[in-house]
Amino acid sequence: MFQEPASPAQSPARTAAELGEDGVIALAVAGVRPDPRVLVGPGDDAAVVAAADGRTVISSDAIVEGRHFRFDLTTPEHVGRRAMAQNAADIAAMGAVCTAFTVTLGCPPETGADVIAGIARGTTRGAADAGGAVAGGDVVRTDQVLLAVTVLGDLQGRAPVLLSGARSGDVVAVCGTLGHSAAGLAVLLAGVGGHEGLVEIYRCPVPPLAAGPRAAAAGATALTDVSDGLLRDARALAKASGVTIALDGARLDPDAELVACAAALGADAHRWVRTGGEDHALLATFPLGTALPDGWRAIGTVLAPGPLPAGTVTVDGDAGPAAGGWNTFTESDEEDGR
Amino acid sequence: MFQEPASPAQSPARTAAELGEDGVIALAVAGVRPDPRVLVGPGDDAAVVAAADGRTVISSDAIVEGRHFRFDLTTPEHVGRRAMAQNAADIAAMGAVCTAFTVTLGCPPETGADVIAGIARGTTRGAADAGGAVAGGDVVRTDQVLLAVTVLGDLQGRAPVLLSGARSGDVVAVCGTLGHSAAGLAVLLAGVGGHEGLVEIYRCPVPPLAAGPRAAAAGATALTDVSDGLLRDARALAKASGVTIALDGARLDPDAELVACAAALGADAHRWVRTGGEDHALLATFPLGTALPDGWRAIGTVLAPGPLPAGTVTVDGDAGPAAGGWNTFTESDEEDGR
Repeated sequence: MFQEPASPAQSPARTAAELGEDGVIALAVAGVRPDPRVLVGPGDDAAVVAAADGRTVISSDAIVEGRHFRFDLTTPEHVGRRAMAQNAADIAAMGAVCTAFTVTLGCPPETGADVIAGIARGTTRGAADAGGAVAGGDVVRTDQVLLAVTVLGDLQGRAPVLLSGARSGDVVAVCGTLGHSAAGLAVLLAGVGGHEGLVEIYRCPVPPLAAGPRAAAAGATALTDVSDGLLRDARALAKASGVTIALDGARLDPDAELVACAAALGADAHRWVRTGGEDHALLATFPLGTALPDGWRAIGTVLAPGPLPAGTVTVDGDAGPAAGGWNTFTESDEEDGR
Repeated sequence: MFQEPASPAQSPARTAAELGEDGVIALAVAGVRPDPRVLVGPGDDAAVVAAADGRTVISSDAIVEGRHFRFDLTTPEHVGRRAMAQNAADIAAMGAVCTAFTVTLGCPPETGADVIAGIARGTTRGAADAGGAVAGGDVVRTDQVLLAVTVLGDLQGRAPVLLSGARSGDVVAVCGTLGHSAAGLAVLLAGVGGHEGLVEIYRCPVPPLAAGPRAAAAGATALTDVSDGLLRDARALAKASGVTIALDGARLDPDAELVACAAALGADAHRWVRTGGEDHALLATFPLGTALPDGWRAIGTVLAPGPLPAGTVTVDGDAGPAAGGWNTFTESDEEDGR
């Protein structure tokens, strides 16, 4: 954990090597403010975080330069915010609220102090945006810039909403944007201007975090976040629940922003909606007849496995090619191309 | 977090790229067993861990190939165990016991399945050795093998023992080995055989985890683990507490194993004891007159700052050169050479 932070650096040091470990830590924690839930914060061997519920939700997710972000397409602050947002989405996807984060920053010695300070502004802002606080972390030397974040969450007395709870007859619903991140990346890779809203979502998603606890309170039977694409994440939910999911293609029509962007790029907006990941929308199932909470929209129905095996997801009855997905180790998109 | 783990791989795949993300996850969680404190384990968006105390202790610490370990000097299983042990030491250093871990594994696509399986055996064993359970994690592609671990701990109703609680007149005490890791590394770098006990401590320290809660229960006023070397960690404790620490050189004499090893290598065993890090011994202060718990030995006294500034540590009255320490970004040892 962070220990011995020096006073926030006012030094002229320009790289991690010149800052030294204590200097990097000082930059990393410079924006950290006291929070009533963080009973012991950065500076000791470990942090102590309130867990009034008697349980704590925990998730860890890392992002790595060259794999999950490129500094020619984003900014250090966006990188920091994004790492926090995608971790926070996993807490919302249990029906919980974020309480605290730890942030492990890895960077090469030649990393600029401005990059480190930017990432730290991003993690501080990202924690605040998620309603949580930075409680600690670590800094290490690595060959690529990376952030390995852990987030804690509070179920506020509710049961966690698992992947495995969907039941035949449930309504399938989503909350948040689909395909905006994929479209924003396509804009940047095409080198065209405009479409700033989509580009911003690519650089840092804004998961509808409050919709997770709202779904839980409304009786959601299963809940997850769309990190790998709607079809893939729906398959994971269907598989865990032992059901199939029938999606209604008409309810997956791209919005006007996506349509305009796809037209400009000669791209397929429907594909962005169905397979684009990293908007971190929330995907849930609710018992039939549930009044869907604010922001949620129905997109399909849960069916018992029958002619189709559990884990199958259809769109307008078509199961499409075999399920695939992103393989982080080969950088190949095994998705089915819908 | 780990999601969609496939069944434990029996495939002939030999590298992370061939295994794919799901295959790597399957290897990483193959040894994970249910634990009553892990209410929701790997496979969902997040884990849920019991926190009966109403607080949770949290620490994150990463180790990186080429910085903290080299595969020509250690084994994948040792790497996994070590990552868990050094995280667990941070929990003991608050006076708490470990409950659960998340493990983020980064590795290049060409990493062998045997290496991944070995690391996973190590993290599983390391968690068990620490009395905790693996609750989840992440796998990402990186240029170097790395483990970014987060550990949760339970204070069992006690107050956390901070770095900042040492008071003038307290006794300074340690529990565990000092300098064995540094000596073990020296043995390996010298290419000589023997000294297996020291080499084993270098590859994976065995922090005296139970001594942390025992110290807390006995009234320890400050507590930390010796990760950067006794003198540096004692300075951090003294600085945080606004005191100076006077160590008794006669109580820092190297043990017979270190003396024999130093003689064989022509090295300085006293330096190993005073500046060698990563044994993860525990260092504490206790009110004068406290009956030290099992395994603890007195090595000095806490003094009010007076002629010497707060944060100063002396050995037999000698404050030595200015404090230094390991700089992870330059790989330079700024230690004072005692």
